[in-house]
Amino acid sequence: MQVGDKFEATDGRGTFYRCVVTEIKRGECNFDIEGSATVGKPSLDIHIAISPTKNLDRMEWFVEKATEVGVNQISFIECHHSERRIIKEDRLQKIAISAMKQSLKAWLPTISPMVNFKAILDHHCEAKFIAHLDDPPSPHLFDRINKEKSALVLIGPEGDFSAAEIAAAAAKGFITVTLGAHRLRTETAALIAAHTLALVSR
Amino acid sequence: MQVGDKFEATDGRGTFYRCVVTEIKRGECNFDIEGSATVGKPSLDIHIAISPTKNLDRMEWFVEKATEVGVNQISFIECHHSERRIIKEDRLQKIAISAMKQSLKAWLPTISPMVNFKAILDHHCEAKFIAHLDDPPSPHLFDRINKEKSALVLIGPEGDFSAAEIAAAAAKGFITVTLGAHRLRTETAALIAAHTLALVSR
Repeated sequence: MQVGDKFEATDGRGTFYRCVVTEIKRGECNFDIEGSATVGKPSLDIHIAISPTKNLDRMEWFVEKATEVGVNQISFIECHHSERRIIKEDRLQKIAISAMKQSLKAWLPTISPMVNFKAILDHHCEAKFIAHLDDPPSPHLFDRINKEKSALVLIGPEGDFSAAEIAAAAAKGFITVTLGAHRLRTETAALIAAHTLALVSR
Repeated sequence: MQVGDKFEATDGRGTFYRCVVTEIKRGECNFDIEGSATVGKPSLDIHIAISPTKNLDRMEWFVEKATEVGVNQISFIECHHSERRIIKEDRLQKIAISAMKQSLKAWLPTISPMVNFKAILDHHCEAKFIAHLDDPPSPHLFDRINKEKSALVLIGPEGDFSAAEIAAAAAKGFITVTLGAHRLRTETAALIAAHTLALVSR
């Protein structure tokens, strides 16, 4: 870019800025803000809490797609059957920023640090769900979300939630839901949950 | 496995077989079929026709996820703005089989060879859609699918469909739909379309 070139920037908190380059120094660029436009928050605040997969690529993929679909917060939870207990937040944050820019969005999802399963149960939210395959099948997430303003869905590890975790979630008001009749990979389930909520609140 | 071990197999055409190993030779295994169970076809036959992305990984990812979500056919289309005109069908087929097994399904999607954009327009289908960002926005795919038994959605390349392609599709009865207010990557749009149809027909 050269002095006088225009570009658009976002703070990831709902505002786009129209900018013009005023000075270029080595590795640095100054600019003026010529105007701004705000984009309202999505009508539903979507929070997905997922037990990270062994393969980190799958989590990176999920963060990219969830950002495109429109998620407000992504948390990572350490469950009884979790095969991975460490994530690379910085890298996931960069992927989310890149996906936000790619899809021309002004809202960046918050990537929260790994927490214990029990800690997420105290998260404040209007509608709280735990997704797992139950027999007989639970109602579909699509049919359990109404006009709430915020929703949290828990997505378990490859080995699913433990019975104790499911009971603990139920005791804290989490509703058991299914995402379809078939077994889904962890990251697929998480994206499907995010998209189901995005569809309902579109 | 040893002689006498039991396993389950599927033909990918709706039948699961309960099998027992009868003989193991070098690199070969014979088995008897002890019983079978059929799984009905999904109520909606979902066909996604996509212009392949430059990066083949993104197509492999799409095939895996589309199989999990429940797609009946995946076609690849060569569009005016397509950046890739060759796909590796064999590899995509293997990925679909692996995803079918992973999600314990008895239906394998058909992976069709690359065809010209015009050829896909003659495909027979009850509900036909072309997804692209329009101004003002078109209706959402979710609101345009009703009780049809089969649906085809066309997903364009990174550079979108050309105006001539959109006009040609409209002339053949394809309905323009959106998949949300934001720009989506090609493979994300394709999966979102597949999941939207799967949700409606669940």
